[in-house]
Amino acid sequence: MGKLVIVGTLAFDAIETPFGKTDKILGGAATYIGLSASQFNVDAAIVSVVGGDFPQDYLNLLSSKNIDLSGVEIIEEGKTFFWSGRYHNDMNSRDTLVTELNTLADFKPVVPKDYQDAEIVMLGNLHPLVQLSVLEQMTQKPKLVILDTMNFWMDCALEDLHKVIKKVDVITINDEEARQLTKEYSLVVAARKIHEMGPKYVVIKKGEHGALLFHNGDVFYAPALPLEEVFDPTGAGDTFAGGFAGYLAKTDDVSFNNMKKAVIYGSALASFCVEKFGTVQMEKLTKENLHKRLLQFKDLTQFEIKLS
Amino acid sequence: MGKLVIVGTLAFDAIETPFGKTDKILGGAATYIGLSASQFNVDAAIVSVVGGDFPQDYLNLLSSKNIDLSGVEIIEEGKTFFWSGRYHNDMNSRDTLVTELNTLADFKPVVPKDYQDAEIVMLGNLHPLVQLSVLEQMTQKPKLVILDTMNFWMDCALEDLHKVIKKVDVITINDEEARQLTKEYSLVVAARKIHEMGPKYVVIKKGEHGALLFHNGDVFYAPALPLEEVFDPTGAGDTFAGGFAGYLAKTDDVSFNNMKKAVIYGSALASFCVEKFGTVQMEKLTKENLHKRLLQFKDLTQFEIKLS
Repeated sequence: MGKLVIVGTLAFDAIETPFGKTDKILGGAATYIGLSASQFNVDAAIVSVVGGDFPQDYLNLLSSKNIDLSGVEIIEEGKTFFWSGRYHNDMNSRDTLVTELNTLADFKPVVPKDYQDAEIVMLGNLHPLVQLSVLEQMTQKPKLVILDTMNFWMDCALEDLHKVIKKVDVITINDEEARQLTKEYSLVVAARKIHEMGPKYVVIKKGEHGALLFHNGDVFYAPALPLEEVFDPTGAGDTFAGGFAGYLAKTDDVSFNNMKKAVIYGSALASFCVEKFGTVQMEKLTKENLHKRLLQFKDLTQFEIKLS
Repeated sequence: MGKLVIVGTLAFDAIETPFGKTDKILGGAATYIGLSASQFNVDAAIVSVVGGDFPQDYLNLLSSKNIDLSGVEIIEEGKTFFWSGRYHNDMNSRDTLVTELNTLADFKPVVPKDYQDAEIVMLGNLHPLVQLSVLEQMTQKPKLVILDTMNFWMDCALEDLHKVIKKVDVITINDEEARQLTKEYSLVVAARKIHEMGPKYVVIKKGEHGALLFHNGDVFYAPALPLEEVFDPTGAGDTFAGGFAGYLAKTDDVSFNNMKKAVIYGSALASFCVEKFGTVQMEKLTKENLHKRLLQFKDLTQFEIKLS
């Protein structure tokens, strides 16, 4: 088993969907990544920052999942990062209503000493220079560095983004972002161009249409589970990434063949995340229910064709 | 092995894509379905109508694939159905530039006597009453009736469409059409509503995102092969349906488990169709290349997760 460092936001989210709206609830990339990875009982640490307004209950929740929080800085006089968004009827697009960076504006991540030799580093969506500074603190080269990012950084920090892309092994990115980054419509061509930027493995997330894993001319496809309804997509991409990173940390095997399993685990975990608002489903998810869902993924995708 | 009746258009198409444009070339639902099903060496017959302008070469091509054309009426003084369309840059949407029904306007399908006891009936996209009249000519209940249709008939012949939907076992329909037909956004809910309209099996085609097969609460997913470029999507849905119907006819097994394999064959065949204009790829497709592609589908989707 390998150690896993997760850098990303701990946040308040306020979410509106066609099904309802929330007050400020627990959110943030590191929260979703951590909860998802915790399914694998790995040694994981979150590196993040919050204000004095961040409830101790939220921290206790993460600790109760065996997530090391010694890398979470608490700025008592500051406020926690806050995001508010409204989803459209199709759930595939959303408007950001509020973004308050607060303590995140001056975030200087500090990787705990015990995790500076972690095998797996998961760089959740943050400014590329913040992501880079985490890599610089690693005392030995990690087995695998996974990067998540978004179009916002392509718009306003593209040069810095390229610097971090160059240094990672895996990038997870959605289809529109892959197209924006490469100016290519075909995802096959886009993935090849992203390979050339650095990452040997490219994961393109397509929301309700699943995710593609590209490596060296090979491709593997993890579907999303067709659901009666997607209640709240917030955190689905992070939950996917957390499952991917957590499974790889647990198995300590970063081969392409093992990554196929990791994207299936990521998809299965994300399928829970979207069933309720926020982290509700991820907080109470049991191994038994995860296993049941993995069986559904098998039924969904596995076939036997004998080729004579 | 079962006999397969295919009803649908034989047509001239003129196609514009970002990659180029064609003169009038061979097209039509029955053409694509027939070429695709012919990969399985089944006894298949096309029921259709053409004008005196339809080249003997095109008929010879279909005959050379062992497709029975005794149900193709040739109206010497008439003209063949003509469709012209232009695809947008994303290849997922298109404008119809010209539709000339010509001989199709008064099409009265006649199922050849030898095929009135066919096990499988594939109703290609046509007016629902024309599709119904084919079913009425069957002297014994087919093992399986497959219906393809489109939004056009939902707009202008919805009542007739419901009559034929009620009588079929399988419907193939794209995602937007499934939503239009049921007024439901969730494809899981839409599929359930379509089940209630009659079909025990519902195939929802999602273009570059693959296809879903629903039956009795179960679901199976066939991905589309990620391609460098989609050159011309014309006929992809019909090629998918032809592969599905052809495989079921060949294996003479209409169980859900066998339908899973049938949708994989359909997806594999459709992945060839879109690589060049019109029927070019389907005309020259070999068993060897089809097998190679099926192996790619295995690599794309198959994984081994041991659940302890």
